Amino acid sequence: MDLGLLYSGGKDSTLAALVLERFYDVTLVTAQFGVTDDWEHARETAADVGFAFERVDLDRDVAEAAVERMLDDGYPRNGIQHVHEHALEAVAEAGFDAVADGTRRDDRVPTVSRAQAQSLEDRHDVDYLSPLTGFGRGAIDRLVEETLHVESGPSEEIPKADYETELRALIREEHGDEQVRAVFPDHTQTRVTGLQ
Amino acid sequence: MDLGLLYSGGKDSTLAALVLERFYDVTLVTAQFGVTDDWEHARETAADVGFAFERVDLDRDVAEAAVERMLDDGYPRNGIQHVHEHALEAVAEAGFDAVADGTRRDDRVPTVSRAQAQSLEDRHDVDYLSPLTGFGRGAIDRLVEETLHVESGPSEEIPKADYETELRALIREEHGDEQVRAVFPDHTQTRVTGLQ
Repeated sequence: MDLGLLYSGGKDSTLAALVLERFYDVTLVTAQFGVTDDWEHARETAADVGFAFERVDLDRDVAEAAVERMLDDGYPRNGIQHVHEHALEAVAEAGFDAVADGTRRDDRVPTVSRAQAQSLEDRHDVDYLSPLTGFGRGAIDRLVEETLHVESGPSEEIPKADYETELRALIREEHGDEQVRAVFPDHTQTRVTGLQ
Repeated sequence: MDLGLLYSGGKDSTLAALVLERFYDVTLVTAQFGVTDDWEHARETAADVGFAFERVDLDRDVAEAAVERMLDDGYPRNGIQHVHEHALEAVAEAGFDAVADGTRRDDRVPTVSRAQAQSLEDRHDVDYLSPLTGFGRGAIDRLVEETLHVESGPSEEIPKADYETELRALIREEHGDEQVRAVFPDHTQTRVTGLQ
């Protein structure tokens, strides 16, 4: 069975791929808006960890709406959630038997409720899997330490391909650095560089 | 890392073992009250699928309280939930680095909330994993079909080792067959007989 896993090159979505590869032919799928070329980092990481890779293109309007929401809110949560739901729809339309993401038990965002999962499955005739939903933060940290090579640092210095990178770039482009810092508090990003 | 997985010999807990074995040294753990010897079916299935096996003994008072609750309610849900929580505590006390169960996204019972999971982890200094929480019914059916050999039939004819078997026996012993049928509607059970 072919499974498309929404992929950022980060540790969660990479670990999700390792959980699923026993059961599925996993393709790592990175969604992008065409704002930057950061999706290429995910392609490189996919090659480093030995999985097939595909890119799906999302409508730039979705990014613009998400940015507007984040600037209104003053925090990124609702904008990120909106983009995640849109990206899952795009992967579900790409023809896989199953779609998946790396959401975790302890994530505040993005989240996919049981009702949303069921709706995605019914409308697209796919299975939706979130294999890390049953894994807590401690377990994930320990499994990452045992299975992956990871580098970490400030968001600006770690080349990743999650939505945040493009959304930050869009805010910077249209509203300046100050607004990026207002919406996204400083935090450390991680990026997978290979399997152990 | 050593992981104890609460095990019934059924397809869900067996599939959960296959999901986790890439990352953990998995021991299948069957909890029992000493009412019947049905835990031996789980030991046999564990051997058939190639995993280590342990038995943990639960206090018979817990079974008696669960039976009382089920008879009062007229349905088994709350009694089963009570027993499941008690069994998870017992596995968490058995000295594993991590404990797990086979609860699924679409299960109504047993369920383990995020708060209950966190509490179990904090009190026992273990990780708690429910690897099938992110898998829907359709995905699980398809994965079982691809990975396991399964037999199915009425509950009375399929030798399993879930709590229900002992709780049914206890009700039968103390209240008669009529009460068993009143609490547990007829349904089809499945039991794993090996890996494909």
